[in-house]
Amino acid sequence: MTLSETGQVKYRNFKIKVAYRGTGLSGWQRQENGLAVQELLEDAVGKVCGHPVTIHGSGRTDAGVHAAGQIASFFTKSARTPTQMVRGANRFLPRSIAVLEAEEAPLSFHARFSCTGKKYHYDYLVTETRDPLRDWRAWWVGTRLDWDGVRSCLPELVGEKDFAAFQSAGSDVKGTVREIYGAWLTSPEPSIRRLEIAGSGFLRHMMRAIAGTLFEAGRGRLGREDFKNILASKTRPRAGMSAPPEGLSLAEAYYEPKAELRRIFGGE
Amino acid sequence: MTLSETGQVKYRNFKIKVAYRGTGLSGWQRQENGLAVQELLEDAVGKVCGHPVTIHGSGRTDAGVHAAGQIASFFTKSARTPTQMVRGANRFLPRSIAVLEAEEAPLSFHARFSCTGKKYHYDYLVTETRDPLRDWRAWWVGTRLDWDGVRSCLPELVGEKDFAAFQSAGSDVKGTVREIYGAWLTSPEPSIRRLEIAGSGFLRHMMRAIAGTLFEAGRGRLGREDFKNILASKTRPRAGMSAPPEGLSLAEAYYEPKAELRRIFGGE
Repeated sequence: MTLSETGQVKYRNFKIKVAYRGTGLSGWQRQENGLAVQELLEDAVGKVCGHPVTIHGSGRTDAGVHAAGQIASFFTKSARTPTQMVRGANRFLPRSIAVLEAEEAPLSFHARFSCTGKKYHYDYLVTETRDPLRDWRAWWVGTRLDWDGVRSCLPELVGEKDFAAFQSAGSDVKGTVREIYGAWLTSPEPSIRRLEIAGSGFLRHMMRAIAGTLFEAGRGRLGREDFKNILASKTRPRAGMSAPPEGLSLAEAYYEPKAELRRIFGGE
Repeated sequence: MTLSETGQVKYRNFKIKVAYRGTGLSGWQRQENGLAVQELLEDAVGKVCGHPVTIHGSGRTDAGVHAAGQIASFFTKSARTPTQMVRGANRFLPRSIAVLEAEEAPLSFHARFSCTGKKYHYDYLVTETRDPLRDWRAWWVGTRLDWDGVRSCLPELVGEKDFAAFQSAGSDVKGTVREIYGAWLTSPEPSIRRLEIAGSGFLRHMMRAIAGTLFEAGRGRLGREDFKNILASKTRPRAGMSAPPEGLSLAEAYYEPKAELRRIFGGE
């Protein structure tokens, strides 16, 4: 513990980058039952800091959803270095969770309130048969989807729009307007089609509702005009099913000014 | 059931390709406790065939070891097509196991006795910190290993040699001479170094003992001469530790004549 000259406890603010394999975890947020990432992190980091900590994530992820670059922050009185934080926390964390990086941040930094954007990946597995080495992190949809049809719908997502049509029923957020900076279909490996969406924020289950609706587009059941109409309807039942959680991962959280994110993603 | 003209039951022989995620499985062979791949496959395929089946694999894999291309065979009286076998079996298998392909084979084909070679992959994860999205299928060894040092040892493995030094203590096989067709170090993605070894056969724990000993070479604790001497000693305790099972996967099993495999892998 460090004491400042006025005798008050001096707090430091840490920003950490966290990855997790969502399989078997109950999501980010502390739950009645199940293993929540936030809780496991607070336990591990608390042990390293020598006092209880409260950890804020850039946002919640649902049960079964993965993260390659979740950002979180916490205050501590401990004098540990960033490297000690990373190594120490990883010793106490289960194998499905790891702290990848740590750095000291200004006291004004808050992983959720300072966040200006996030990028999610939704992976579809396009093999003839199930593939147990890949389907823990991708939704197996077979080989017959029309990916040009999927791609044609993506421009409808971009911009500041009301995404109520892709919100889950039990949500309690005030507004349903969000800004999508960009949406792309990529292929990081031959058997994977990856939907990448970067936006200012995402409603509950929004990525999975979009991924499920785009699956319908891939099956030829709806085209770009239908997709546009679903979005404009602002009504959930018109959109497709929710895609399963194992295909979804939080790729990155951003803290640059929104204007910069618009420029970066608009230029991709 | 098909009856031949003589009134005898006509059996058909099926060759199948199987993939599994070894995490949480107790290996290929039926065990007192735990979930064995062979047993789960026999249950699933038996349901599709409508009668109990005995499934032979190209070889055993240990608990926690993965397979991308395990080959197995079984006799059946059923008239199912190969496609029906694949789809039917996958409906009854847990998500960690899948039948990728099926084909009818001559009655003389036996997945183990006909097998002329196998290729194993051992994956090392070379990231700064643990990576939960990758370390279920790779051994995290950090960023400081000398991969040129590892590579320099590989030629010592190639050829027909006595591999007793890399055999586990509890083995009961008669001979310890095996032929290694080729050994390479590749990098399928930036954070993975992959040891690929193709050979006529592998002793129990041989791949993991080699991977553990090469790790020592990567740490600078032994060079090519030491590696050669360990092999020549034919004594297990001189070799390095056994590398953990999660890095290992059975990539392929071969049924071509050995001369052809020597030609293929010798030319790589």
